[in-house]
Amino acid sequence: MLEQLKEQVLQANLDLVKHGLVVFTWGNVSGIDRENGMVVIKPSGVPYEKMRPKDMVVLNMYGQVVEGTLKPSSDAPTHLVLYRQFENTGGVVHTHSEWATSWAQAGYDIPALGTTHADYFYGEIPCTRKMTQQEIQENYEQETGKVIVNRFKNLNPDEIPGVLVNNHGPFAWGTNADNAVHNAVVLEEVAKMAFRTLMLNPEAEMGKNLLDKHFLRKHGKNAYYGQ
Amino acid sequence: MLEQLKEQVLQANLDLVKHGLVVFTWGNVSGIDRENGMVVIKPSGVPYEKMRPKDMVVLNMYGQVVEGTLKPSSDAPTHLVLYRQFENTGGVVHTHSEWATSWAQAGYDIPALGTTHADYFYGEIPCTRKMTQQEIQENYEQETGKVIVNRFKNLNPDEIPGVLVNNHGPFAWGTNADNAVHNAVVLEEVAKMAFRTLMLNPEAEMGKNLLDKHFLRKHGKNAYYGQ
Amino acid sequence: MLEQLKEQVLQANLDLVKHGLVVFTWGNVSGIDRENGMVVIKPSGVPYEKMRPKDMVVLNMYGQVVEGTLKPSSDAPTHLVLYRQFENTGGVVHTHSEWATSWAQAGYDIPALGTTHADYFYGEIPCTRKMTQQEIQENYEQETGKVIVNRFKNLNPDEIPGVLVNNHGPFAWGTNADNAVHNAVVLEEVAKMAFRTLMLNPEAEMGKNLLDKHFLRKHGKNAYYGQ
Amino acid sequence: MLEQLKEQVLQANLDLVKHGLVVFTWGNVSGIDRENGMVVIKPSGVPYEKMRPKDMVVLNMYGQVVEGTLKPSSDAPTHLVLYRQFENTGGVVHTHSEWATSWAQAGYDIPALGTTHADYFYGEIPCTRKMTQQEIQENYEQETGKVIVNRFKNLNPDEIPGVLVNNHGPFAWGTNADNAVHNAVVLEEVAKMAFRTLMLNPEAEMGKNLLDKHFLRKHGKNAYYGQ
Repeated sequence: MLEQLKEQVLQANLDLVKHGLVVFTWGNVSGIDRENGMVVIKPSGVPYEKMRPKDMVVLNMYGQVVEGTLKPSSDAPTHLVLYRQFENTGGVVHTHSEWATSWAQAGYDIPALGTTHADYFYGEIPCTRKMTQQEIQENYEQETGKVIVNRFKNLNPDEIPGVLVNNHGPFAWGTNADNAVHNAVVLEEVAKMAFRTLMLNPEAEMGKNLLDKHFLRKHGKNAYYGQ
Repeated sequence: MLEQLKEQVLQANLDLVKHGLVVFTWGNVSGIDRENGMVVIKPSGVPYEKMRPKDMVVLNMYGQVVEGTLKPSSDAPTHLVLYRQFENTGGVVHTHSEWATSWAQAGYDIPALGTTHADYFYGEIPCTRKMTQQEIQENYEQETGKVIVNRFKNLNPDEIPGVLVNNHGPFAWGTNADNAVHNAVVLEEVAKMAFRTLMLNPEAEMGKNLLDKHFLRKHGKNAYYGQ
Repeated sequence: MLEQLKEQVLQANLDLVKHGLVVFTWGNVSGIDRENGMVVIKPSGVPYEKMRPKDMVVLNMYGQVVEGTLKPSSDAPTHLVLYRQFENTGGVVHTHSEWATSWAQAGYDIPALGTTHADYFYGEIPCTRKMTQQEIQENYEQETGKVIVNRFKNLNPDEIPGVLVNNHGPFAWGTNADNAVHNAVVLEEVAKMAFRTLMLNPEAEMGKNLLDKHFLRKHGKNAYYGQ
Repeated sequence: MLEQLKEQVLQANLDLVKHGLVVFTWGNVSGIDRENGMVVIKPSGVPYEKMRPKDMVVLNMYGQVVEGTLKPSSDAPTHLVLYRQFENTGGVVHTHSEWATSWAQAGYDIPALGTTHADYFYGEIPCTRKMTQQEIQENYEQETGKVIVNRFKNLNPDEIPGVLVNNHGPFAWGTNADNAVHNAVVLEEVAKMAFRTLMLNPEAEMGKNLLDKHFLRKHGKNAYYGQ
């Protein structure tokens, strides 16, 4: 079942390697079939170079394995929370990419400092609060998802398709698995440039007008942009 | 028409990838045929690996499409302002290259700190002022060009073939599309080294004599240089 | 003798190159056959591209060459101290990898700032004290090993499989040669991200709960983790 | 004439590219035949990918072209000063490599902070003083060589095979062209790690004992080292 989605999810996982976002197996991508409520995710601990479409694991939205002989990525419960709560999300990606993870370890939101950021993220990329002892000890991966959702209480996940989990690393999402990886690449690039910008000028900032212009010329009903 | 120029412009766009100046499609190069007043530019949103010479778009100097079925890069109006105002310019390039963009986001000119800089740029690489609300909302891409031209009121674009657009990224130009890309590569390299130089020594500077020597041994009528 | 171990040790040495941990011949990996008390180590000064399994040198645990015509790596005495004192160690690696070496030169322990670190190292990665004049002048390489062991007086080398030698560079170890290289890669990645994290936020830290969770879900008897 | 030396010098120039020390044609290597007093150097402005052994230019020690139809690198006069004054030098290399150039632009000596440095450079890598107006205007390239030699008044060029020219970039040398490139690679690596070390700990330093140990175990009559 879901053969096409498995191919897409596999390809998206391999693209993490191509874009330099992962070391060893430190990353995972999933995709969802909204009609059937089925999620396809990377198996746990299999090296990228050996993964095949049939190794992908199919889960229902409550985490039960519907198809596949391998264990799903241990981050699956986090992915599932995002699919359940962010209703337009078609793909989710998690990495320990080096720049975004450095921001996550610092515990800081990534401010919107330029148009590269504004083209994809409509405001700062938020960092979650530190998790409590209880959240860490019980259902840790699921609680990670809840802390993300909680951080988006006043934010729109369709306009800000990524987050930093405090002391951990980034999650990104998108309309499908490929788009989620695309956003993860942008998040990493933006994290790198924001770091350097603030080293040069700790007072750097971007006006709301420019943020609006770049985000809205590319997204929403009046979009006209394409480089 | 302009088949040779299309080939050159395509090659110059591909060279952006080769030199590591672009992620996804975040860059565009154009070239001009001054005799006919025709500009050839990269189409909008086509992945580099799939672009062919016939995909290049031909515009007149007022932005009307003369040949080509694809949409021109949405930055075309900025390119056109530069061609109209900087009369010796034969090629223009725009990227979001990581180091130059970090300086642009910081809103700082890149100071001339060494001979690498002086070999190509006769003084600091300027950063434009922030754009006004009106400039951003109406004819944004064209206004971007005007803000660049305004920044060069007392500067010679033939001697300083590049600029940082505040909160955005670099534009570079040259005698043709290939030379513009060459200057964009230098701008990026110079931005990277200036960052590190100032981290080491915030007081670093280069004397005017050395700047003169390096720029003038390579450019102008007494040039003798070649490494 | 030990043909399989020689193959493994050679492969592990080549993996240092693949992972970008070495320039020229600045690195060495060894592996031990605990049953026979024999150590296989890279020969001295042979370029990686020319090394073959039969070039590997077999030593007993006191450093005498048992097989092989080439000189063992001059760091062999350090490796041997670690094998003698850290009884579960099956492989040892030494590099001058750029980020870990920068920390070693700074003389600082690498703090545990995120889950990437916690997945492999159960606490900060320690830096040794500076060596005394006498340690440097007599049996320097062996004394280097002793200073490492001394630094682990109150630490468990099975839970912290790496160290920074002050003003020098990292050593890492593991269950075998391949696992030691794996830990050296992680150490380098963690060193890079910790550097950037502290540049962003000098007060960054990670709670003990999260460190426990990540280390213990992956290591020890209750492990369940796999990305 | 000197066919073998031409091959060596060409290969050494190509190795600059392989080791990532040059952008475009920003680097040059030469080698000397001490018996005949003849220097072979890269021609000016020829792209690396097109260079052939017969393109190398042969100069006598006073800069006259003895063989070759192309112009010698414009840095040739600097190379020649070094050959005339540093009598054991068999090869010279100049680059604008990114880390060493950043230190040169900062105008700082690179301190010896670790054993990687000590294995090749017996003390800090010096930066020259800024050149005077007269030195810059008359025989600039030759004066560059003299300023380097002047900086070594109390230093031994055989023990410190490299220098930073203020506001410019590094020169390195060695027993032949290949060894000069080797030292240029080390200089770049050491420059990178010293930068990061001082960002972490501005007070970092290495004791004289360790410097002695590492330099002297590898160089001079009691050398025994090989990784």
